[in-house]
Amino acid sequence: MASIKPSVPKGTRDFSPSEMVKRNYIFDTIKSVFKKFGYQEIQTPTMENLDTLTGKYGDEGDKLIFKILNSGDYLSKVKPEKLAAPDSQSLLGDISEKALRYDLTVPFARYVVMHQHEISFPFKRFQIQPVWRADRPQKGRYREFYQCDADVVGSESLLNEAEFILIYNEALSKLGLKDFTIKLNNRKILSGIAEIIGKPDLIVDLTVAIDKLDKIGLEGVIKELLDRGFSQDDIDKLKPVILLEGNNDTKIASLKQVLLSSETGLKGIAEIESILSMVSSLSPDLTVVELDVTLARGLNYYTGAIFEVKTNEVAMGSIGGGGRYDDLTGMFGLKDLTGVGISFGADRIYDVLEELNLFPQNAAETTMVLITNFDTDAESYALPILTNLRNAGVAAELYPSSAKLKKQMAYADHKNIPFVLLVGTEEMQSGLLTLKNMKTGEQQKLTAEGLLDVLTS
Amino acid sequence: MASIKPSVPKGTRDFSPSEMVKRNYIFDTIKSVFKKFGYQEIQTPTMENLDTLTGKYGDEGDKLIFKILNSGDYLSKVKPEKLAAPDSQSLLGDISEKALRYDLTVPFARYVVMHQHEISFPFKRFQIQPVWRADRPQKGRYREFYQCDADVVGSESLLNEAEFILIYNEALSKLGLKDFTIKLNNRKILSGIAEIIGKPDLIVDLTVAIDKLDKIGLEGVIKELLDRGFSQDDIDKLKPVILLEGNNDTKIASLKQVLLSSETGLKGIAEIESILSMVSSLSPDLTVVELDVTLARGLNYYTGAIFEVKTNEVAMGSIGGGGRYDDLTGMFGLKDLTGVGISFGADRIYDVLEELNLFPQNAAETTMVLITNFDTDAESYALPILTNLRNAGVAAELYPSSAKLKKQMAYADHKNIPFVLLVGTEEMQSGLLTLKNMKTGEQQKLTAEGLLDVLTS
Repeated sequence: MASIKPSVPKGTRDFSPSEMVKRNYIFDTIKSVFKKFGYQEIQTPTMENLDTLTGKYGDEGDKLIFKILNSGDYLSKVKPEKLAAPDSQSLLGDISEKALRYDLTVPFARYVVMHQHEISFPFKRFQIQPVWRADRPQKGRYREFYQCDADVVGSESLLNEAEFILIYNEALSKLGLKDFTIKLNNRKILSGIAEIIGKPDLIVDLTVAIDKLDKIGLEGVIKELLDRGFSQDDIDKLKPVILLEGNNDTKIASLKQVLLSSETGLKGIAEIESILSMVSSLSPDLTVVELDVTLARGLNYYTGAIFEVKTNEVAMGSIGGGGRYDDLTGMFGLKDLTGVGISFGADRIYDVLEELNLFPQNAAETTMVLITNFDTDAESYALPILTNLRNAGVAAELYPSSAKLKKQMAYADHKNIPFVLLVGTEEMQSGLLTLKNMKTGEQQKLTAEGLLDVLTS
Repeated sequence: MASIKPSVPKGTRDFSPSEMVKRNYIFDTIKSVFKKFGYQEIQTPTMENLDTLTGKYGDEGDKLIFKILNSGDYLSKVKPEKLAAPDSQSLLGDISEKALRYDLTVPFARYVVMHQHEISFPFKRFQIQPVWRADRPQKGRYREFYQCDADVVGSESLLNEAEFILIYNEALSKLGLKDFTIKLNNRKILSGIAEIIGKPDLIVDLTVAIDKLDKIGLEGVIKELLDRGFSQDDIDKLKPVILLEGNNDTKIASLKQVLLSSETGLKGIAEIESILSMVSSLSPDLTVVELDVTLARGLNYYTGAIFEVKTNEVAMGSIGGGGRYDDLTGMFGLKDLTGVGISFGADRIYDVLEELNLFPQNAAETTMVLITNFDTDAESYALPILTNLRNAGVAAELYPSSAKLKKQMAYADHKNIPFVLLVGTEEMQSGLLTLKNMKTGEQQKLTAEGLLDVLTS
């Protein structure tokens, strides 16, 4: 067999041991917070039936779903006419029945409907699994990447929204981030604004335009609004809303004036007030929430609160987002189930922690101590020491052959092992072992007990 | 949109919160032991290039690989002639370039070759990820299942084999198994036996037959040996080997006599002796290793030690296995790299722990305490209590709306929450909170501090 130059499919990645340690650190931190707030983990299969996924992500999304070829003689049931006039789209249903998970939301909806009689609502679940999209790969965008979602379905209480703000705050703080903003908006406020200017039908155009304020500035937004059918008069009414400044209380007071005649808009403001009030009861010192009426995200999806999280320490897109939705499970026949959820952008958080050097030093360590191996006598001498270390819970290795010391030290160095225990003739005679600290270079002579004390302290 | 009755593809599974807790318990336990022995985690992509996988698992295996349809207009580059004479096999290369991971071994070999200049050998890696096989689904056999592998490449030291025995022993003991056997054999002993009877070319036939001793008994094995071209004379020579009894020392002594004239066979015995001697230095009390010369497993693959683990508490196939191989990476152009590895059968271990009721009670618990919600006053009163509990590291929830008590208790019960904190008018007036133990039904009145003491003790 000719040897193949090995590669991975474009847009996919291997994760090395040091990357895995850092990724697990992020996921474990987020998981521990989810659990503290009563969220429970589920997993769904990598493959879903194609008809479970099709039509849920728009035409563009459908194209980006990875389809799995039917097993065996996949052409056997295809009518010859179909092959005579080849058409990828129409042949698809004949040769593929399954596809790779595209996000965690649709599989979650499918899960809730399938298992509705085993579930006790409100159902608080988190899920951390990879998803696949046939996007054009580019810097920071992959075809396989992890999503990290928490959702609660079956509860309309705004306590859930308030707790998601606390979850973001606690998880990101635990990860060492010091300056971040949790932006909060409400779909009903956006609807109210569209109502006020008398153009409720243009709500999508309105929000798509003002959502770009960060990127294209006020002039850009105004130009886009004019292009999308708003008049100069509308823009004059919108400007103070878009440019709303001050703290949350000031913004809320202004919005109440603007939205005075919109019942929906006032409802949105009342929801924001309730959420902020609960956040303040739960966590009086939390100051990172910022009301931002230009925040829209996946507007057609959200019906109430909308969240987005940004770090202010590094230039980076949002590192999290979410909101409340109604009728997520309607597509699978279970109506009127409301829910709210958030997502963490794990790949971006990884890049942020890397850039700010926030990964714990010991996050790169696995083995605590490497015992050198000079010859078979030393190896035999070392075996019970190795066992003692492991019995004390210390991750320990004996170099498996009597290689040159330089090679063994290089192994420890490459693997970021912080201590090397030297076992040579002198050590075997005296019973005193030499422990070398690989960071400081310092060496100390220790008894077997002394060694355990140092490594377990 | 018509609603679809939701289902998952056959052979795949959802994992509920209680199943996830149990699965994580198994994986976390095994991981902690891998790490203690210096193994580091890697992950490889779900998709591999089709040519990375094809030809590695035999013709039958190739058929069971799930192929991914190329994205976009996948037929556009197919020549019309090919569609005129439809043939699933010949069309495959035109419409599919990627496939789902079939095992963890080939992707690991690909990883080692691709990253050989970043790796410091010996490379000790573990990997716990799902794999996919288009097998016919049946009880206990799935199309998506997790593999849990540890391998070391680049070291021929038998210390690695000895440590894998310790890893099996420690991980399974930690999981609560009390009676299991780690079977050990060596491919060189099998080769030696084939040599002795003068039929080295029939080694595959020999081992396939004797590997079935457990299933079809001695008579069956003899019949199969005769069918496969062995003479009655051969069988007379083989019988004492197949029926070898006694402890490992006795077996080794007998084998040394039988294999006296086979250099390869004696080498195999010497390896077994070294491994057992190191195991005994590392762990003098370990008695679960059993030399079994009928053990063959994937013979063409293994070149030295062969392992297999069986529980003696439940009727169940092997719950682990592995062995030493040479030239794993040769298929990708990196020659002469030896390795040895083991695998845990996580799904079977799950079933064993379930049957023996060995999952820890608290493995089903997530939230420690649910606070009831009777009305908005009680909710407001409860918010700071909730924060105090969480700040003390207690996983806590406030029921998000003022539902009937029965419903709230049912929620706690269903979620296996061990404590419910009742906050009603009386509690708010007295400041004494009522904590109900959901298992015993016992209730106690506690101050805020007393509550923390009980729940964090």
